[in-house]
Amino acid sequence: MTLLISGWVAIDELETPFGKADSVLGGPASYAAIAASLFTDVRVLAGVGEDFPPAFRATLARPNIDLAGLTTLPGKTSRWGARYEYDMNTRDVLYTDVNVNEHWRPSLPAGWADSRSVFLAAAHPAVQMEIAAMLPGLRTSLVDTIRFFIELVPEEVKRAMRAATFATVNEGEARELAQTPSIASAGRKLLANGGQGVIVKLGEYGAAFVSKDDYFVAPGYPLEEIVDPTGAGDTFGGGFMGYLDTVQHVTPAEIRKAIIYGSTTASFAVEGFGPARLLTLTRADVERRYREFRALTHFEVDD
Amino acid sequence: MTLLISGWVAIDELETPFGKADSVLGGPASYAAIAASLFTDVRVLAGVGEDFPPAFRATLARPNIDLAGLTTLPGKTSRWGARYEYDMNTRDVLYTDVNVNEHWRPSLPAGWADSRSVFLAAAHPAVQMEIAAMLPGLRTSLVDTIRFFIELVPEEVKRAMRAATFATVNEGEARELAQTPSIASAGRKLLANGGQGVIVKLGEYGAAFVSKDDYFVAPGYPLEEIVDPTGAGDTFGGGFMGYLDTVQHVTPAEIRKAIIYGSTTASFAVEGFGPARLLTLTRADVERRYREFRALTHFEVDD
Repeated sequence: MTLLISGWVAIDELETPFGKADSVLGGPASYAAIAASLFTDVRVLAGVGEDFPPAFRATLARPNIDLAGLTTLPGKTSRWGARYEYDMNTRDVLYTDVNVNEHWRPSLPAGWADSRSVFLAAAHPAVQMEIAAMLPGLRTSLVDTIRFFIELVPEEVKRAMRAATFATVNEGEARELAQTPSIASAGRKLLANGGQGVIVKLGEYGAAFVSKDDYFVAPGYPLEEIVDPTGAGDTFGGGFMGYLDTVQHVTPAEIRKAIIYGSTTASFAVEGFGPARLLTLTRADVERRYREFRALTHFEVDD
Repeated sequence: MTLLISGWVAIDELETPFGKADSVLGGPASYAAIAASLFTDVRVLAGVGEDFPPAFRATLARPNIDLAGLTTLPGKTSRWGARYEYDMNTRDVLYTDVNVNEHWRPSLPAGWADSRSVFLAAAHPAVQMEIAAMLPGLRTSLVDTIRFFIELVPEEVKRAMRAATFATVNEGEARELAQTPSIASAGRKLLANGGQGVIVKLGEYGAAFVSKDDYFVAPGYPLEEIVDPTGAGDTFGGGFMGYLDTVQHVTPAEIRKAIIYGSTTASFAVEGFGPARLLTLTRADVERRYREFRALTHFEVDD
């Protein structure tokens, strides 16, 4: 069982009411890889610049994260700066410096073509499709995107979503892509585009999953205090695909479990600054909170 | 088993992308009474003006709704006008004409002092407390409020919430009353004020319930199309208290069921213009959707 994760590995500058740092390990692939590594073996396919700190590489180099696909290119690592207001729902993106990711092209290390699962974190949809095409043994794929690509190349984004097993989109992006105000109808419209399931990420309200035969709502975990929302969506994707990579058959019941595992890991991610909390997280912590998720939503039905 | 419901009975003017009407039966007590009457016997304590249409009275006069407390006063019925934008999340309140409710004082019809439950829909908190004080046989009470009273008399609103068993607040009002951005911490802060439980209404995302020993999240029902959101919160309160009035003991499990019954009736309410869908709703419809709510949120937990 191996999950390949592609997307940016970046250097983040973050400012929240709880902290401020100039240089934090960031990027969707970093959050996703750390989260997924709690469940399965992970391969990271990404490019960084010559300035990528050895300490960040060491942080990512966990026992079951293979960094053979983390290539160093001439130039600078992608950088992203963001500031959160008091209520954490307002994020000001200060800058997005693409740097090496402008020229990075995927090149698969020897032996990686057998990857059974792939999480194509936000990137140009052409690159996402190129990577998927390199993986003939693929059982399950998840594609994520960001508003930037939806506005730049909406049709290509839809094509990448169509080609994948699952797609994740933020609520606002779902409404924008589907041109409809209801979450349910946006989800169904995006599903009609293709793929087997669409996950609409609802932030602190949880997530909704739509497939041809299923509709599932995962609650938001009732956190008293959110320290830093950065990477929550990518952590969700990592936890979701990390768990799904381990199951014998991708059934509706396993998909629901994967969504709760994604929600669980994401709820931990936002408890720490940058990826800090994820780095100390254990599978036992995840299992404990998974059960709490059940307790949160359970109610009786009379027979 | 009897549930007393107090609050405005009004004449609404509504405009949504799906329809427009000058005069629709409205007001929190109307929505709540119709919803609650699917579960239990209801008594309506409210004042209307001489212009209150006999047809509206006839609509409310359902077999298990007692209108002995619906008094006609000199003057005009309260009127409320609202317009919804395309996405249904933006509501423009066009006007709120208090009319007879400026002078209406609660006066209990003979025999009503034995009411076992009360839903004190939005009104001046002094009036809400006055009504509760008239009901010595009370087992369970629910108090609801609106931003208008929170801004006018915040301390009195908190006092009325403290005196009740349960309080419902909209998410935005909860954040405002509690002065904190997280739903979980807003709920807990409001609970610390008093009462046994706080329900934060999350609109299309469902509802969160906080008590000393419990936290429960009810999902939003995935409606493809919302016709008119008017009265959803009051319908929730009516369904919640209507069910709770019928249970032998108000246990945490029954409270969770009541929240799902409230969510179920509210999900129907928004499917029709004004109270139209509620008026054709049957208990069998409610039971069917109650089970769908279970299917929406169920996931497996390994032993």
